[in-house]
Amino acid sequence: MTVMPRPLPSLPRLMVDDAVRAALLEDLGRAGDITTQATIPAEARAVATFRARKPGVVAGVDFIKSAMFQMDASVRVSILKGDGERLVPGDVIARVDGPARSILSAERVALNYLGRLSGIASATAMFADRIAHTKARIADTRKTTPGLRAFEKYAVKCGGGSNHRFGLDDAILIKDNHIAVCGGVAESIRRARAFAGHLVKIEVEVDRLDQLVEALTERPDVVLLDNMGPDMLRQAVAIIAGRAVAEASGGVAPDTVKAIAEAGVDLISTGWITHSAPVLDIGLDIDLE
Amino acid sequence: MTVMPRPLPSLPRLMVDDAVRAALLEDLGRAGDITTQATIPAEARAVATFRARKPGVVAGVDFIKSAMFQMDASVRVSILKGDGERLVPGDVIARVDGPARSILSAERVALNYLGRLSGIASATAMFADRIAHTKARIADTRKTTPGLRAFEKYAVKCGGGSNHRFGLDDAILIKDNHIAVCGGVAESIRRARAFAGHLVKIEVEVDRLDQLVEALTERPDVVLLDNMGPDMLRQAVAIIAGRAVAEASGGVAPDTVKAIAEAGVDLISTGWITHSAPVLDIGLDIDLE
Amino acid sequence: MTVMPRPLPSLPRLMVDDAVRAALLEDLGRAGDITTQATIPAEARAVATFRARKPGVVAGVDFIKSAMFQMDASVRVSILKGDGERLVPGDVIARVDGPARSILSAERVALNYLGRLSGIASATAMFADRIAHTKARIADTRKTTPGLRAFEKYAVKCGGGSNHRFGLDDAILIKDNHIAVCGGVAESIRRARAFAGHLVKIEVEVDRLDQLVEALTERPDVVLLDNMGPDMLRQAVAIIAGRAVAEASGGVAPDTVKAIAEAGVDLISTGWITHSAPVLDIGLDIDLE
Amino acid sequence: MTVMPRPLPSLPRLMVDDAVRAALLEDLGRAGDITTQATIPAEARAVATFRARKPGVVAGVDFIKSAMFQMDASVRVSILKGDGERLVPGDVIARVDGPARSILSAERVALNYLGRLSGIASATAMFADRIAHTKARIADTRKTTPGLRAFEKYAVKCGGGSNHRFGLDDAILIKDNHIAVCGGVAESIRRARAFAGHLVKIEVEVDRLDQLVEALTERPDVVLLDNMGPDMLRQAVAIIAGRAVAEASGGVAPDTVKAIAEAGVDLISTGWITHSAPVLDIGLDIDLE
Amino acid sequence: MTVMPRPLPSLPRLMVDDAVRAALLEDLGRAGDITTQATIPAEARAVATFRARKPGVVAGVDFIKSAMFQMDASVRVSILKGDGERLVPGDVIARVDGPARSILSAERVALNYLGRLSGIASATAMFADRIAHTKARIADTRKTTPGLRAFEKYAVKCGGGSNHRFGLDDAILIKDNHIAVCGGVAESIRRARAFAGHLVKIEVEVDRLDQLVEALTERPDVVLLDNMGPDMLRQAVAIIAGRAVAEASGGVAPDTVKAIAEAGVDLISTGWITHSAPVLDIGLDIDLE
Amino acid sequence: MTVMPRPLPSLPRLMVDDAVRAALLEDLGRAGDITTQATIPAEARAVATFRARKPGVVAGVDFIKSAMFQMDASVRVSILKGDGERLVPGDVIARVDGPARSILSAERVALNYLGRLSGIASATAMFADRIAHTKARIADTRKTTPGLRAFEKYAVKCGGGSNHRFGLDDAILIKDNHIAVCGGVAESIRRARAFAGHLVKIEVEVDRLDQLVEALTERPDVVLLDNMGPDMLRQAVAIIAGRAVAEASGGVAPDTVKAIAEAGVDLISTGWITHSAPVLDIGLDIDLE
Repeated sequence: MTVMPRPLPSLPRLMVDDAVRAALLEDLGRAGDITTQATIPAEARAVATFRARKPGVVAGVDFIKSAMFQMDASVRVSILKGDGERLVPGDVIARVDGPARSILSAERVALNYLGRLSGIASATAMFADRIAHTKARIADTRKTTPGLRAFEKYAVKCGGGSNHRFGLDDAILIKDNHIAVCGGVAESIRRARAFAGHLVKIEVEVDRLDQLVEALTERPDVVLLDNMGPDMLRQAVAIIAGRAVAEASGGVAPDTVKAIAEAGVDLISTGWITHSAPVLDIGLDIDLE
Repeated sequence: MTVMPRPLPSLPRLMVDDAVRAALLEDLGRAGDITTQATIPAEARAVATFRARKPGVVAGVDFIKSAMFQMDASVRVSILKGDGERLVPGDVIARVDGPARSILSAERVALNYLGRLSGIASATAMFADRIAHTKARIADTRKTTPGLRAFEKYAVKCGGGSNHRFGLDDAILIKDNHIAVCGGVAESIRRARAFAGHLVKIEVEVDRLDQLVEALTERPDVVLLDNMGPDMLRQAVAIIAGRAVAEASGGVAPDTVKAIAEAGVDLISTGWITHSAPVLDIGLDIDLE
Repeated sequence: MTVMPRPLPSLPRLMVDDAVRAALLEDLGRAGDITTQATIPAEARAVATFRARKPGVVAGVDFIKSAMFQMDASVRVSILKGDGERLVPGDVIARVDGPARSILSAERVALNYLGRLSGIASATAMFADRIAHTKARIADTRKTTPGLRAFEKYAVKCGGGSNHRFGLDDAILIKDNHIAVCGGVAESIRRARAFAGHLVKIEVEVDRLDQLVEALTERPDVVLLDNMGPDMLRQAVAIIAGRAVAEASGGVAPDTVKAIAEAGVDLISTGWITHSAPVLDIGLDIDLE
Repeated sequence: MTVMPRPLPSLPRLMVDDAVRAALLEDLGRAGDITTQATIPAEARAVATFRARKPGVVAGVDFIKSAMFQMDASVRVSILKGDGERLVPGDVIARVDGPARSILSAERVALNYLGRLSGIASATAMFADRIAHTKARIADTRKTTPGLRAFEKYAVKCGGGSNHRFGLDDAILIKDNHIAVCGGVAESIRRARAFAGHLVKIEVEVDRLDQLVEALTERPDVVLLDNMGPDMLRQAVAIIAGRAVAEASGGVAPDTVKAIAEAGVDLISTGWITHSAPVLDIGLDIDLE
Repeated sequence: MTVMPRPLPSLPRLMVDDAVRAALLEDLGRAGDITTQATIPAEARAVATFRARKPGVVAGVDFIKSAMFQMDASVRVSILKGDGERLVPGDVIARVDGPARSILSAERVALNYLGRLSGIASATAMFADRIAHTKARIADTRKTTPGLRAFEKYAVKCGGGSNHRFGLDDAILIKDNHIAVCGGVAESIRRARAFAGHLVKIEVEVDRLDQLVEALTERPDVVLLDNMGPDMLRQAVAIIAGRAVAEASGGVAPDTVKAIAEAGVDLISTGWITHSAPVLDIGLDIDLE
Repeated sequence: MTVMPRPLPSLPRLMVDDAVRAALLEDLGRAGDITTQATIPAEARAVATFRARKPGVVAGVDFIKSAMFQMDASVRVSILKGDGERLVPGDVIARVDGPARSILSAERVALNYLGRLSGIASATAMFADRIAHTKARIADTRKTTPGLRAFEKYAVKCGGGSNHRFGLDDAILIKDNHIAVCGGVAESIRRARAFAGHLVKIEVEVDRLDQLVEALTERPDVVLLDNMGPDMLRQAVAIIAGRAVAEASGGVAPDTVKAIAEAGVDLISTGWITHSAPVLDIGLDIDLE
């Protein structure tokens, strides 16, 4: 069963291959996998199984394909669980078949990507499950691992979440510091609108209700309700009255997310799902021949 | 107060700069920081303070310097807490002074590195503190974030831990799969010794005591005692009797590490400190002028 | 006098330096500037003046600084006309002072960037001037030179234009082919909305008025009125009635743009300003010492 | 019918692939083609036709192959018009068949290269046609788009032109500034000859006939007759009397090139064909299945 | 007959391909192989034979495959002599079959790698042969060609040698300068042990016997006996008495190596085999069709 | 005393820095210089002297500057012997002053470049000295180290030699295989001339006198006299009679070069000076403070 609305986004192969290539070179170092060279004959073959050891949501199966293929184009990979699917312990995610040396040498890189992205998808799904009875959705932030942002945001979607900005350039998000310099929330939105192209949305962060009222006079696309408790959020949603997307942020945790969602916001954004989600435990069982 | 034995390792500036450059380009995208361009005048200046919001151990202050410098060479950075120092909430790690646009645009990249590396250092220190009464040390694994291995292993040292292999090429680690193909633990060590250069250490993984006995006949440098409980570990340490470094692995968690360490092993390796450590909460307070 | 609304966007130095570096290496080849090495003594110095030979709008002065600095950090550059300023023939854009070899070797790269970007700014300004009495603005497209998109879109803003999408990822633009597969314009917008994050705008292309009416039922942010004549555009604007941004495209040329703008659209997008604008003629006068 | 002397040069696949890869990544950004992901099912297939909408000369068909292949190795491409062939409106240049998403996502990059290079080939052919009754040939300059020099010079050859220097390193071209420092045209050629290897040609720029006479005493391989009118060019050609290649430059335009060529020069070089040629209008018609 | 102990190390394909790609681009420059384009028809085919012209040991056959494949995926390559095999003049190392242009254009890059690496393997084997009656082995150093270290160290193994450190990071080698600062050889080893991880070996350089005695008190893994004559080496070996690996260095030459080896050391390291070994003369005979 | 005609070529700083950066990263690996980190305090300073231990010609002093600067911008470097100067044992080439850790960590990279390039310059000078009484000059080939061609050809000029082609693209060199396909030497030159631009020289290889006579009818710029003994070379030079540059190649060695030069050729090209020249022995003496 998949946890996210169709259609699933897709990761361009070019990006996956570049990232995997860099990771393989990092792991191989200058001398390559010396243990495998020493102990495994070149002609030995193996079949291996990527298997979930904990429940969760899978994300990143293309990294298995890419790691195996770039190490050795003769390795065959079959994917049994597609990105976004729920896993129970014991589920087989993929089967791999080919020269034992190649599979052993590529194993760690494949697992490092797969475990991390699946960890993010699983953490997102955990939050999403707790607010499934509301209209709110979980969104990510720019608090991602340097170099992996596109992949981590993809994993968030696999887990049923929604994506916030991918960078500083694809939307305007006016924060407290910007407002302070501009001399007010309304003025900052006016400047943003004068600057932005017609395909750029404008979001503004407010932390008080009077600031929210002022912001709405300039009709931002989204308001970020920062660090407000459920009661204040409920008031804010009432004030907004559908005139902007209502996003809550700050203090989002597994035990607070339900109350935040029930306050009626559209989105709840949290860095936790990318910067603090534990890896999903996935193992590789290898049968050597 | 620092938590690690002197001297601290140092990160080559070349590597830090390359990593930061890639992260800045990832965040700037094609159009750069459009919010700041729209709302902050080019001539505005700011001073900003990187401040711990939770207790922990700091790692990665060079990333602050590099992010600010590469964004704008005129930004001045003063480091107040060096890598490896303990933090209490409110501690100021660094002060930054320069053009407001540049500081705001570089903020997230600096924080993403600093928070992640400090999170790893803090998790390592948490484990290290629990076993400080024993001779054992905490060690990392190759379960690191793709692209960040050198930095994450540096953070482990900042937290008082010790480094395992940096890649597949700098030591031999014979695992169950290698042993299975070779037809035995002793034979696999012999093959490894015949292959390896004189500056390469050999470690072998065992999961039974009879395997350990067999392994020791070939005098490996290190034995990895995999998934053994405290009692079995104590027996293993007795069998080893100082003939090899004794490393425990598997089932390492905050509540198990003390018992493992008290079994007398030299090292306890765990992927948790790199793949599942939450970020350390560090904020940037900005005073605009 | 500048031609664009303040504030001007700014190009991150990192991006400019990377682009200039690649261009310098392309021009230097393997043996470097052999003419200069053969005929100019290492100790000779020069002052040089970048001067407009035709009227236009300047864009790309940072490329002068970067080319000179990367060739030789001792060359001094003074900018006299900032990006976005109008030029008349004879205007001095920048003065350069330093070792003659370095200035001569970096000249062509600096001019190739400066001339091309100023050509785009000037073409944009030419269109913008013709529609200055209307509310319409000129916008670019993705028909840019491979590798130079961010710079060319920056030049469009210097010329008083507005930016369309920077890539396939920062907004949704549903074209005829997408509509054909989805089975209709309304359905395609619904699918886009279900897929897109809350900071992503949705634009839809229509080429008939009934299609426009259908599209508006799903409230897209922008409608692209494709290849409609002025009369049909006027009808379309009336139908839209402010419910979406009205963008005209197709058949845009110096002699048609006025009538298109007067039909009441908000934006007129054209690839011509990036893919077919002639270079602005700028020369470098060198005084050797 | 091809417009250039056989054999056609060939572009190394390595270079084309590198350039296309960078352009695809520029266009895909971090999130990829979100419109196509949202509206086109993964299993949809399409056939598409690259078709000329204006007359001209085609250049760059390998970029179609590379863009499609790198986006998706399962897309099939058939080339119907090879580089250097004349096009009339409606001519089919290539047919493409494969997954609809992949074709739509790679379309713009393929067209951006193809249109630009064909524009250069067509502009070159336009000049070449006007001087076809003379012995003169059209040559390019180093006034090319940064990063695209090799490709643009290839397009010039497809259009029937000839290539000047590819960079600062593959021939010596002594200009007025070099002469000024050396203290004379003859001395500058002597220095160049002393410096240059035996496979490096020497060209010298002159703008007066007495300077030409002095230059010829040192037997340069080529003389660049700068900004001379047809009468003066005719005198120059008479003075040269076959002792050097005669190249005219400066003031070259569609309406002046014939008179320049008829003055008897061997080559006419102009930056216009690379820095100011408009794109050739080529469209992609897609039939979705 | 192979000259090295099995199993042979293997070069990761990723590394070979990256290195070959860079070399091809260096050789092709901007215009590609213009001689071949001018004189060889696109449809001409050739078979070619890589043949030893001098005796030696082959290393680097994968570079033949990679150069041909990256130039043109349709070229077929058959390897007849694997890395590490002895060659006599006339031996065929590989046969190549495909488009003549591609083979001719890739020839030099393939030969430059193959000749250099085989030269290193052959020089190593020459040294190794002279000490084959002793237990000593020849080892390399970090005196390698910048950018080619991994490949050159691989070639040393192909020639029957052993590898020293691959870089500054994979083992500790304490030299005279380090000792001078630390205030003594014993103290420097203690500091190294406190710093190094449990998988890092420690080697220390000594040039006097009393220094050796001091060093051994701290039990380094390896001692580097620097610039000692055979008699002193014999004394040193007696003092070491198996407590550390004994490595001799300094003054190693074809005529001295036998006496050094007979002194009883375990390893003899020399930069000569990588920084001064002449290329092995290998030619490519081409039969055009 | 310098050995080469003025002016000396210069290496663009951009290229040197890129090459040095890659070499530093290769040597530092993932963990950096662990020996220095362990044993040298961060505050220790050193002065160091690059000193010739053998006679020769220096080339590559910019690599010292670049290696030190990129490792640590605070290291000061003074050059005492410029590229192209003769060295006697004991000559100081450069002095370096700064943090001891940085100097020790950058030492090997600086020496690897300096020794290799000086080795090439010295070998070239050795050949050049033997033929100084003739008009012939020593030239290099494309038999260079992959990735280092521009630097090695620069070193050849420092040693008083002359450069042949830098790549496949900057001149035409018709060899036996090209001639075989074209059906004759004259036809191959005609095809080359039809293809080549006006700034491209044409060289043709001949190995018989009748072939030479045929070649000269088509007036190539250079003839490569391949593998001819001194008598045949003398006849060839007489046949050429100044109508082309006469280049001898094949069988060039220290003991044969004099006779070849005395046969009257203009150039003698040999791969030996780049592919087989031993490193020049240069050491770094460090005084720690």
